[in-house]
Amino acid sequence: MRTIEVGILGGTGMVGQQFIRFLQGHPWFKLTWIGASDRSAGKRLRDATAWRLEGDMPASAGDLIVSDCKPGNAPQLVFSAMDASVATEIERDFAHAGHIVVSNSRNHRMEPDVPLIVPEINPAHLALIYRQQRSRGWRGMIVTNPNCSTVTLTIALAPLKKFGIERVLAATMQAVSGAGYPGVASMDIVANVIPYIGSEEEKMEHETQKILGEVENGQVVPLNARVSAHCNRVAVVDGHTVATSVSFSSKPAAADVRAALEAFRGVPQQRNLPSAPPQPVIYMPQQDRPQPRRDAGRENGMTVFVGRVRDCPVLDIKFVACGHNTIRGAAGVAVLNAELMVSEGLLD
Amino acid sequence: MRTIEVGILGGTGMVGQQFIRFLQGHPWFKLTWIGASDRSAGKRLRDATAWRLEGDMPASAGDLIVSDCKPGNAPQLVFSAMDASVATEIERDFAHAGHIVVSNSRNHRMEPDVPLIVPEINPAHLALIYRQQRSRGWRGMIVTNPNCSTVTLTIALAPLKKFGIERVLAATMQAVSGAGYPGVASMDIVANVIPYIGSEEEKMEHETQKILGEVENGQVVPLNARVSAHCNRVAVVDGHTVATSVSFSSKPAAADVRAALEAFRGVPQQRNLPSAPPQPVIYMPQQDRPQPRRDAGRENGMTVFVGRVRDCPVLDIKFVACGHNTIRGAAGVAVLNAELMVSEGLLD
Amino acid sequence: MRTIEVGILGGTGMVGQQFIRFLQGHPWFKLTWIGASDRSAGKRLRDATAWRLEGDMPASAGDLIVSDCKPGNAPQLVFSAMDASVATEIERDFAHAGHIVVSNSRNHRMEPDVPLIVPEINPAHLALIYRQQRSRGWRGMIVTNPNCSTVTLTIALAPLKKFGIERVLAATMQAVSGAGYPGVASMDIVANVIPYIGSEEEKMEHETQKILGEVENGQVVPLNARVSAHCNRVAVVDGHTVATSVSFSSKPAAADVRAALEAFRGVPQQRNLPSAPPQPVIYMPQQDRPQPRRDAGRENGMTVFVGRVRDCPVLDIKFVACGHNTIRGAAGVAVLNAELMVSEGLLD
Amino acid sequence: MRTIEVGILGGTGMVGQQFIRFLQGHPWFKLTWIGASDRSAGKRLRDATAWRLEGDMPASAGDLIVSDCKPGNAPQLVFSAMDASVATEIERDFAHAGHIVVSNSRNHRMEPDVPLIVPEINPAHLALIYRQQRSRGWRGMIVTNPNCSTVTLTIALAPLKKFGIERVLAATMQAVSGAGYPGVASMDIVANVIPYIGSEEEKMEHETQKILGEVENGQVVPLNARVSAHCNRVAVVDGHTVATSVSFSSKPAAADVRAALEAFRGVPQQRNLPSAPPQPVIYMPQQDRPQPRRDAGRENGMTVFVGRVRDCPVLDIKFVACGHNTIRGAAGVAVLNAELMVSEGLLD
Repeated sequence: MRTIEVGILGGTGMVGQQFIRFLQGHPWFKLTWIGASDRSAGKRLRDATAWRLEGDMPASAGDLIVSDCKPGNAPQLVFSAMDASVATEIERDFAHAGHIVVSNSRNHRMEPDVPLIVPEINPAHLALIYRQQRSRGWRGMIVTNPNCSTVTLTIALAPLKKFGIERVLAATMQAVSGAGYPGVASMDIVANVIPYIGSEEEKMEHETQKILGEVENGQVVPLNARVSAHCNRVAVVDGHTVATSVSFSSKPAAADVRAALEAFRGVPQQRNLPSAPPQPVIYMPQQDRPQPRRDAGRENGMTVFVGRVRDCPVLDIKFVACGHNTIRGAAGVAVLNAELMVSEGLLD
Repeated sequence: MRTIEVGILGGTGMVGQQFIRFLQGHPWFKLTWIGASDRSAGKRLRDATAWRLEGDMPASAGDLIVSDCKPGNAPQLVFSAMDASVATEIERDFAHAGHIVVSNSRNHRMEPDVPLIVPEINPAHLALIYRQQRSRGWRGMIVTNPNCSTVTLTIALAPLKKFGIERVLAATMQAVSGAGYPGVASMDIVANVIPYIGSEEEKMEHETQKILGEVENGQVVPLNARVSAHCNRVAVVDGHTVATSVSFSSKPAAADVRAALEAFRGVPQQRNLPSAPPQPVIYMPQQDRPQPRRDAGRENGMTVFVGRVRDCPVLDIKFVACGHNTIRGAAGVAVLNAELMVSEGLLD
Repeated sequence: MRTIEVGILGGTGMVGQQFIRFLQGHPWFKLTWIGASDRSAGKRLRDATAWRLEGDMPASAGDLIVSDCKPGNAPQLVFSAMDASVATEIERDFAHAGHIVVSNSRNHRMEPDVPLIVPEINPAHLALIYRQQRSRGWRGMIVTNPNCSTVTLTIALAPLKKFGIERVLAATMQAVSGAGYPGVASMDIVANVIPYIGSEEEKMEHETQKILGEVENGQVVPLNARVSAHCNRVAVVDGHTVATSVSFSSKPAAADVRAALEAFRGVPQQRNLPSAPPQPVIYMPQQDRPQPRRDAGRENGMTVFVGRVRDCPVLDIKFVACGHNTIRGAAGVAVLNAELMVSEGLLD
Repeated sequence: MRTIEVGILGGTGMVGQQFIRFLQGHPWFKLTWIGASDRSAGKRLRDATAWRLEGDMPASAGDLIVSDCKPGNAPQLVFSAMDASVATEIERDFAHAGHIVVSNSRNHRMEPDVPLIVPEINPAHLALIYRQQRSRGWRGMIVTNPNCSTVTLTIALAPLKKFGIERVLAATMQAVSGAGYPGVASMDIVANVIPYIGSEEEKMEHETQKILGEVENGQVVPLNARVSAHCNRVAVVDGHTVATSVSFSSKPAAADVRAALEAFRGVPQQRNLPSAPPQPVIYMPQQDRPQPRRDAGRENGMTVFVGRVRDCPVLDIKFVACGHNTIRGAAGVAVLNAELMVSEGLLD
């Protein structure tokens, strides 16, 4: 396969660094362009920002000259790690100019003609892009992935859709890396819990319905299920944990739920896409797992781990799900979206 | 008021130390006796155990000679902080011998003739002791308080009972102090979440129904509500946080729920018992509160803080509650139970 | 004693909040004025800033209208909690206008005519203010306290001065509260150590020499001892821990050092100043103490705890000291400085 | 190269699990035998112990039947991860019976005829085994590696030996994984520092002198340098940080020290041993590095990272070193010791 050059919009921030790390050694994509604010443009990346992740900044990325966020010289495929405060216009400008914008930003997710994709769950939603291009007069497109906590929740729910999901109650315990850098103040989180993450509950509630919905007549009909989220921040570095209760129209036994989780495979697995994990979900039989520090990073951070599937006295079934928020929930899901799009022939 | 001598069964463990601390300077109760295992008996308390709480062991307690756990020379009123592995027989022996055993141990909580009391909620359940004494032939009695996470949940639910509680879904984030000493291994909890606490979910589900039930014909009829708990351990020192969703037969507005929480007072407040907080519940209007490190210890650790009362898309109302697990949830609630019993004239 | 009205410069920041908390219920000082940036001026304090400490903002402080940082209507005595980026000019303006500025800011500490005071150690350094007033033409004055880690170190060293301190090697483990709010990013400190705190080592090395110095001919002659600091940030909320090795000209035994620490008393103890702890230093005989979470807040946070005094194979004696960085190391030491100055008759 | 079968003494404990993980996929060594206490013997490993590390127990190890700790059927080469309470006799029994015992236990380290090896530093100390075998009448041998914090310190010091090390003052901030499982109680370490680790300071002081010593006439002459350690436990999962000050007979400039650290290579690098990192030491120029969470695990956890080399006002040079305590400081260094011994032809 030929190498595809890619760029990152917002490449100096925390999410941008996660893209840089995740793209290291990618078999299809080669990072050749980084766009950031005017303040950084013209500098080498290593001089424009400090590396916040483990180890050192990858040398090949550090040598790139940061561009400003204008469509001119960027590759066709750009990942957007832009802050929500600036993403709306810039992403539109790139899509208008013909770029394929695979965005982790929240700005366009809920627009009716923008696909909100988790590749194992709803690859068919890519069909929205034809309407998007037609109605907006764009040569390019914007394709989005959900909020990090929503990714973990929806991957755990997708195998259970066949049981007729009716209600979902999810309480999260989210890692500090989800808030970027500097993000959560240490005075707020050391030996503490913050029972609030701005607009996170709304995102989980609405994005889940859209992702689990079906495309009909070129539109997404959201899943007709009620979703309620309690979002909490805890002193964990990476890995969101979601205590989940679900009711179903058909009343599956806990064993049926476990079997469905383990059996789940999606298009990325069928096509053997480079970033696809062997299984989207691994069920852990131990009574005290999954745990974010011990599990979230396994399988390259692309698998969601589920445990403790059991009867719920209030809804039908309860379980705990755990996924890596900055990989499976951000950079990794976006790259997998791009791989899906390549496999669909959406790139030139 | 005369001073009442009290003892502690299991006074060398972590819960025992919490009793010692909480009883310091108590206006009614004077700690004069500590019972522990044979290994400790005969030693001064300071030589029998290391102090695990803040600061130093109170000197007056440190000077006490530890007794073995036999009824002989103990005061009439004894608090039990015994490990569940040994509490059953010893508490019975003391009750049989005429002692009033106010127990934090789980062993007898769910027995039909043993009161399970949170003084603000169900003081009328003390009526069970007459049946207990009659049927068991005891001169003394056993009165229990619930598990630490249940205390916080039930105090937040009690003011809402009038709205007709039907279903409760609670996800906890519990402090490590709830597990005693050595308790949770640091390898398990630093930068991690443990989504399991042995038998805690069952305790929350069943104890809540009993506490919120009514006494009819000398028996407790449990609240006819379904309760489901997800119990998680997090890296917090003190203070359990409970993300709670509730449905009601009458559909109160969020504002009604807030008002009911703020207005709640119980018998301990009416009688001005020494350990009673001015309000059992304080509602915090800030969007990111309560938080365990910042709030659980306020008001001497005896108040439950509730915040974020809002509509729940799945059940009716959702909120977050936070209480101090070793004070309000253990030593403090037991001492308040004893104060209630004194105010009822149950001591000689 | 009459009540003395006081103000706080920089009252909306984290250190300002610590002053507000520490001044609650003070027997001499009544907080009546808060100065902050133009952005906050004119608002009630409760509307100008969120409360970052435990519990809620004290109501009496929350009702104060924030002023801008101009000398006009402030009380004679003002505590400065200003950020170093703005403190230099504003503190000078206040001193010039006749105010007594008791500052926790670093800006003026090392100026030769500015006293740098820990009241138990060097109250005689207050003599510098006469030169300060004369040479600068000020009616008021600036008196400073040291950096938070230096306070703990110097209080532990002061009782040992009589043994002839020659060299001091101190490695700190400092709490996140020392960095203000938002301060340290949680991504930097959860399950981590940051082996660097900007300019902290220089402050510890130079401030220690000045504080332990003597006034001769109206000037401070710094202690002729070499001081080396390794400053580290750890995931602790409050309380700086300092692993310290010291060499002396007279070679005291470890027992002599322990005795000197326990016997140490200063002018604040002799005069029974309101914020003075009974003992500036408490020696803990346990092999694993002091510890920041268990010890720093004891004795109202105003005592330095020292433990593990033992022979050092490289210098002479080694020990560990621990003090509360935002109380003893900031607001508390400043208030105690003001109390000392009142007791010296320095206020009108 | 042929495959060499290896066993692990004490394979069910935490250190044993680290050996199991580190040996996964080793090009020379194949784990075929695990010895543990009678309680575990006869069970499959997966049934004998819970896996405490990230992810799941490697399947091939989980299938092994645990043997009791008798020399009979074990392979010639056994790694010892035994608890100090039992290691003395069992290691001797194995050595006597002809086994090559490569031990991480502390029991025999300081015996004059037992090599205490860090392969990059003192491979020549292997010469002690000839005396060991002769005087003890053993066909096998015991070779040890140092305590985890000592490994990090000595690897940072070894390149500086040429400058004439005279005095070393080291203050550690050690990860909880160093204490095994359950190890440190979470009540002791969440938001806290424990300024004491039992017998750790003595180990660092004495082992450092032995490792940096020279073999003369078949004996190790310890380095004639004074070493003082302050050992502290902090809330870090993996990675010990050592704030270090050193004085030298020749007074190297900081730049010379940095150059020496970067240039350092040892026998494992020359022979390209499988577990040898490319560089034993990497110097990090950033002002706030190394950090345990971000750096200790890099380079497979086998490199020691050093930063902040600068002048020390008390000794000559100060710096911070950080290494992975359970890899470089335990299982990894032991396996590298075994590789060194294979390369020396010490196995049959």
